[in-house]
Amino acid sequence: MAKIDVRSAPAGSGSRYPPPFDVPCRGRSWRRLGEAAGLTQLGVNLVRLTPGAWSSQRHWHSHEDEFVHVLSGELVLVTDAGEETLRAGDCVGFKAGARDGHCLQNRSVADASFLVVSSRSDDDHGEYSDIDMVFTAGRYSGGGGYRHKDGTPY
Amino acid sequence: MAKIDVRSAPAGSGSRYPPPFDVPCRGRSWRRLGEAAGLTQLGVNLVRLTPGAWSSQRHWHSHEDEFVHVLSGELVLVTDAGEETLRAGDCVGFKAGARDGHCLQNRSVADASFLVVSSRSDDDHGEYSDIDMVFTAGRYSGGGGYRHKDGTPY
Repeated sequence: MAKIDVRSAPAGSGSRYPPPFDVPCRGRSWRRLGEAAGLTQLGVNLVRLTPGAWSSQRHWHSHEDEFVHVLSGELVLVTDAGEETLRAGDCVGFKAGARDGHCLQNRSVADASFLVVSSRSDDDHGEYSDIDMVFTAGRYSGGGGYRHKDGTPY
Repeated sequence: MAKIDVRSAPAGSGSRYPPPFDVPCRGRSWRRLGEAAGLTQLGVNLVRLTPGAWSSQRHWHSHEDEFVHVLSGELVLVTDAGEETLRAGDCVGFKAGARDGHCLQNRSVADASFLVVSSRSDDDHGEYSDIDMVFTAGRYSGGGGYRHKDGTPY
């Protein structure tokens, strides 16, 4: 049938950030729901964060819109505007090209989960707001990667 | 702050389908969350269906991926494969160009709600599976509309 079998959707956990930037994301796990449905224009991930875990390092995207809908638990959204607590039913959008980095941090004692949807563009690249790192274009075509802001590789 | 104020997001209800095809959608209402966040690559709507209401006439999209996540209540998904009941946490994706029409029908006695996300393409057009109607390209640039399958306007 058409319904996505969430428990058999492609899964992963942790982060491919170079150390030590991967450490805050060790408690992150996800299911690739869009991929499970054969979608190619939308990235849709169901993400779970254990207590203490971050969704990512704080970053922004050059070419991709992103939308987050919180499903359970409590998350702290960090942006240039400061910090804000999000709970089930709360949602937030990040427009492509807006250079205001964001991440979600689970500072609670329980797991939290959210749905995150992005448009997908192989031209997409971006910067991390709080650390000396950028991500480069090409990640849907086997390229992409992490560099220092001066362009040197990790 | 960055969080979307759902209650002040652009809202609407009903359908612009030519009669009598609008009738099943009279109990449909929505909030445009993506628009509230300034997104242009993603359409994100929070949709509520009263008992008896349909999300749409059964249709497919030529150029847009679509993803649905059920938030509350009980909905019947209708596709070429038949009928399937969806509840909170269930999700389904519809790949651009797959000519298998879908709609969600609230046959329960309580409201149901879901989040629906689409990529946005002004080239998008499509067909309604069960009625003599198509929708034409151009709906993000002030065009688009409904026609009979032989091309004559309603």
